[in-house]
Order: sequence, then C-alpha cells, then structure tokens
Amino acid sequence: MRQAQSLPLLGHLDPAFLGLLDLVQQQLRALFGTANRFTLPIAGTGTAGMEAVVANCIEPGDRVVVGSHGVFGQRFAEAVRRAGGEVVEVRAEFGLPVDVGELERAIAAGPTAAVCIVHAETSTGVLTDLLPVAAAARAAGALLLVDCVTSLAGLTLSFDELGVDAAFSGTQKCLSAPPGLSPVTFSPRALHKAQSRRKPPPFYFDTQLLTGYFGADRAYHHTAPVSMIYALAAALDEVQREGMAARERRHRRAAAALRAGLQELSLQALVPIERATPMLTTVRYPGGVDDKEFRARLRQHHHIEVGGGLGPLAGKVFRVGLMGHGATLQNVLAALTAFAEALGQQGRSASHGEALGAAAAAFEE
Amino acid sequence: MRQAQSLPLLGHLDPAFLGLLDLVQQQLRALFGTANRFTLPIAGTGTAGMEAVVANCIEPGDRVVVGSHGVFGQRFAEAVRRAGGEVVEVRAEFGLPVDVGELERAIAAGPTAAVCIVHAETSTGVLTDLLPVAAAARAAGALLLVDCVTSLAGLTLSFDELGVDAAFSGTQKCLSAPPGLSPVTFSPRALHKAQSRRKPPPFYFDTQLLTGYFGADRAYHHTAPVSMIYALAAALDEVQREGMAARERRHRRAAAALRAGLQELSLQALVPIERATPMLTTVRYPGGVDDKEFRARLRQHHHIEVGGGLGPLAGKVFRVGLMGHGATLQNVLAALTAFAEALGQQGRSASHGEALGAAAAAFEE
Repeated sequence: MRQAQSLPLLGHLDPAFLGLLDLVQQQLRALFGTANRFTLPIAGTGTAGMEAVVANCIEPGDRVVVGSHGVFGQRFAEAVRRAGGEVVEVRAEFGLPVDVGELERAIAAGPTAAVCIVHAETSTGVLTDLLPVAAAARAAGALLLVDCVTSLAGLTLSFDELGVDAAFSGTQKCLSAPPGLSPVTFSPRALHKAQSRRKPPPFYFDTQLLTGYFGADRAYHHTAPVSMIYALAAALDEVQREGMAARERRHRRAAAALRAGLQELSLQALVPIERATPMLTTVRYPGGVDDKEFRARLRQHHHIEVGGGLGPLAGKVFRVGLMGHGATLQNVLAALTAFAEALGQQGRSASHGEALGAAAAAFEE
Repeated sequence: MRQAQSLPLLGHLDPAFLGLLDLVQQQLRALFGTANRFTLPIAGTGTAGMEAVVANCIEPGDRVVVGSHGVFGQRFAEAVRRAGGEVVEVRAEFGLPVDVGELERAIAAGPTAAVCIVHAETSTGVLTDLLPVAAAARAAGALLLVDCVTSLAGLTLSFDELGVDAAFSGTQKCLSAPPGLSPVTFSPRALHKAQSRRKPPPFYFDTQLLTGYFGADRAYHHTAPVSMIYALAAALDEVQREGMAARERRHRRAAAALRAGLQELSLQALVPIERATPMLTTVRYPGGVDDKEFRARLRQHHHIEVGGGLGPLAGKVFRVGLMGHGATLQNVLAALTAFAEALGQQGRSASHGEALGAAAAAFEE
C-alpha cells in the first residue's frame, strides 16, 4: 500500500490513471453497499469529506437533528451550524449510544431536513445501530447523513438498503491506506438537494463540479492526488481479495481476543461488546495509572501507539485501534504484553501469560 | 520524494512526526519569503488552499477586486463569489496580463476589502508583476491574496517585503512532490480578519482550529496526511540543498532553452519571455496541426505529457511544464525531439537538429 505510492506518477488526466479511478469508484461502491454513481474519494481527510457532505446537503435555515455522543458527533453538529443549519443536538454521555427514542422524538418534533449520525464513534468506541435512525429519518422525509470514517472496510455496510443519502469515510482507518483521502457517496436524492440549492457550495466541494471530473466528461476540477489514489486502489484490491465478510469477521475476532485478554489483566472496556465498534476498543485506566506515562511507555518501549481519551474521557481511558491490517491476533498479543509491562512500571504488576492464553482462545472461537 | 512516501507511518500526533512538521513549516516560510507563523500545508490540493484563503479572508458583502486572465483567476473570482464577496473582476484576454492601470482604478473605485491575483497563471503561462498590484492594494488598505500554486519553489518569493497577506500553493508543481497538499501562509493581518469574522469559516479551513494543531497545543484538528508530508519534507530538503537562487536560475535557463529550440521548429510561444512564467510555456499550434492527435502522439510514442489549451485557447495551444525536477536541458531536448516528430506525423516536417543545438546553447548562456 505504502509501496504503491512510489510508482511513477501519471498525469491526473492520463487515460491509464482515469481507468484506475473508475475501478476505485466501483470498489468504493461495493464497500458502502450502494449503487450511487456519485461515489468517489474527496482530496482531503475525513473531515474534508464531512465538509463536502454538509456543504452540499445543508442549506441555511435547515432544521437538522444531529446525534452527538463523542468528538465526531460534536464536530458534525459544529459543521452543520457553520453551514447555517439550525442544529437540534441529541446528546449522550461519552461512552453511551444516542438514545433512539430521543432521536426519534427530535426528528418528529419539526420539519427535519436532515439527520446526521456517526456510525462508529472513534472517540469512544460506541457503534450506532443505524436501522432505527434510518427508519425515523425516512418517516420524516429527512436526508440521512452518516459519518462512517471508522467503519468503512471494517464492517459490512448496506447503505442503499438502509436508505443512507450521503456518507463520508477516511482511508487511514480500516482501509489501512495513508490518511489524506475521504471516500464519499451521495444518493440521487442528496444530489438533487445539492443541485437545487439557492447558493452553490464552496468550489472545492461542489458535487456538480466533482461530477464533471469523475463523470464521463473528465473536466478538470482539481489535480487528483495521484499517489494517494494508487495507495487507495491497492488497499481496495486487498479488501476485495480478502472479501468483506471475512474482513469483518477478522475485526470482530481481534476485538473479542483483545477483550478476553484485557479481562485477565483486570482492565475494563468502557463499552459493552454488544454496542461497541470492533475496530476500536476504549479501556478504562485502573486507579492510580497515569495516562501520559502509560502511553509514552507503550510508544517508547513497545512501539505501540494507543489513543488518549478525548473530551470528558481525557486521562480516564485509552483507545486501542485494531483496524485493517492491524486487526490480527499477533497485534493483540503484542498489545497485551505491552499493557502488562507498562502497568507493572506503574506498580500494578499483572501477569500477562493468562491474558495471552485467553486472547488466543477467544480469537479462535 | 516518491520513495519518502513509503516510510513506515508515524501517528500524526507522534513527537517525531511533529518535529518534522515544524521543519516543514520553517522551510515553507523560507520559500514564501515570510516570517508568518501561520504557514503550513493544508490537507488538500491547491484549490483547497484557495478555499482556505477565501473562507477565512472574505466575508459576505466584501468588495473584492479579482484579476482574471486565465482559468485560475476565474476560479479565484468564483470562489470569492460563492463566499458572498461582491466581485469586481478585472479581466484580460487569455495570454495577456491583467492591465495594472485598470486594476488600480478598480481598487480605488470603492472600499476594497481584498485584492486577489494569480502570480503564475498555469492556464496561459503569463506571470504577473506583483509589485504594482501590491502597492495598489496597500494604498487602499485591502488584503492582498495571491495564488502562487505554480511559482512557489520555482521563483524566489518575498511575500513579506511585497506585503502579501495570504497565499496558497500546491506540491505538484515546482516542488515536484505528489499532488495533495496546499502550502498556505497567512499574515497577522489576514488572521485578524479571519478571527474577527461575524460567521466562522467551515471547520476544515478554520485558521483558529488549524493553529491549534500546528501551534504549541498540537490539539487534534484533522489527521495530517503523514505520507504526503514526508514527501513534502523530502522535496523541501532538495530545494534547500539546491538553493532557491540556483533553482530559479535553472527554471529560467530551461525556459530559455525551450524557447530557442521552439523558434528553430517554427513554433511560436504565446507569451513573450519578459512576461512569461519560466516553469510553463504555452506554444501556438501552427495551422493544420490537430491538438488531440499531437498530444496523444507525444504521450504514446514519447511518454511526454503536455497540457492542452484551456478556455478560449482550447485546441489552439499546448502547454509545456518544466517544473522542479523537470526543468533540465535533457527534458528540453527530449521535448523538442518529440515535438519535431509529432509535427512530422502531421505533415509538417521539421528538422530538429538545429533546434537541439539552439536549445543547448541557450541553456548555457
């Protein structure tokens, strides 16, 4: 994947490159579970994809219900607010899912133009059940806009079946490609909204102009980040070879293995497995363990990077990503060994032998 | 450069990566000729950099004078218009520079909030003399916003001395790095405007939030495109080793060599050398030469890609980039050989021996 970035650069309007781009778009459609023609990588990170969705689908004055139970839900709400949307934020504590009943009532309480929801909330590890959210949005005739930055290529998505109107992702999570591109998809309904706006969106994010380049015209809009698209194409080929069902299962097995091992180390996951993202597990610190020291030890002595807690969880938890390439038993075992050692450094000696055994057993189940 | 993208990925908040980022920012300041603290690569292409400049520096209702003499000037005007600016577009024919007197009169004619100008217009090869534009902007108290996508790292820039308030560039032109990042710089005056806006800009482009990540806080804003930043860092090291004065001279010598050879092939440059960009030369087709056929021949038989004409120049010219790594005598000679052969294919036989001699002589001057 990284190696793919070192190929000689083709011009971004070169026929050979455009063929590759077609294939990338086709493979992205398969991952989103959609037939949407408008499915493509935005030249920017996941947040750029969010801006593209918001800039096209939200008009000033739109009433927009946003589920917000972590940093990325808050960010979604903020982006909608900046685009002039009247945001009704349905909040849940960090670590809990958004309450579906509350969301349904908020959607039904007014003329709702759009519903925004984060599928896999990377700041907490909570996975949203999209089914009831989609039903409520549909009943209200609202557009359903989904942040699937962390779930794409880790979980099987069926966005057409659900009725998702627009979604954005990133390349550095379960695709295991470098960060810098944001795969997005827009339904015809979302495009219709985008194209009947009173005021056009910013040039960079304009779906009509993007259609010019990614459609049959291949009209120049921006210089496609050729190297990163090579990397994305290589990543998508890998997903296709593994098969999405097997890939999802691998992510789930790695998460189960991690949790089994954590238990043996007396470490507690923040989110119960039934409503947790398999690709990211948030772990509570036991009393007396210093966050900065713990994570520095992992980085410096074990070359393992875990995320810190965000927002109200800062200092209280650490976040373990097992995404794409990383979702392996080998990585789980290395992580558990490192956790045990780093806890030991802080006077909480934990024997990791049993943890490794439990993890290996859980992985095989 | 491309190889640098294959290094193992560090986390975007890893101290080792943050050190590299500091160095990149410092080297970019040297290229822009600025002490602006806010100098950094936006995660997106040159057009994303343009959006960042516009989103922060233009408020709805601002009167903005935009010099427009090619595709990128038109794009700049369009972006300002979409941001709610009242655009006064000072137009010049494709291939001519914007008339300075006309620009001065437009700036003086009203309360001008900002002046937008393209330094090296890639669609025509015209170079703008920024000095009088900067003087007129300063006299009116307007912000000066500059597109230097194609000039950065090809020409020595002294933006502080000129009084440029914000500028954006790209990585795939004279830096010879892959496309996907947009180096930008904002003066304290531009930041002040950005931060005293009534309405905040889109989240992705917000200078205040970007300062959070690129400043001392290192607060998470977006996942920095780590691989591309490696590539940019490698490119900047190369520029530093060559020295900007030598690099500019190399670009000028390559352009002179190309022009000397074109003359021997009876091909005419669109723009006289005094007001042309050295990194991009636009060449008129002689009567009877088919653009598509000519460019396809270059691509398929000589592995040389030249740009087509844009806007009113479509079909009438082709554009030869000699940028960064590409600005060498060897490339000039290969291009001239290919042009002669491709013209011959279309029945305009041209002997290229004299062209090569003339080019080599001009390169040495």
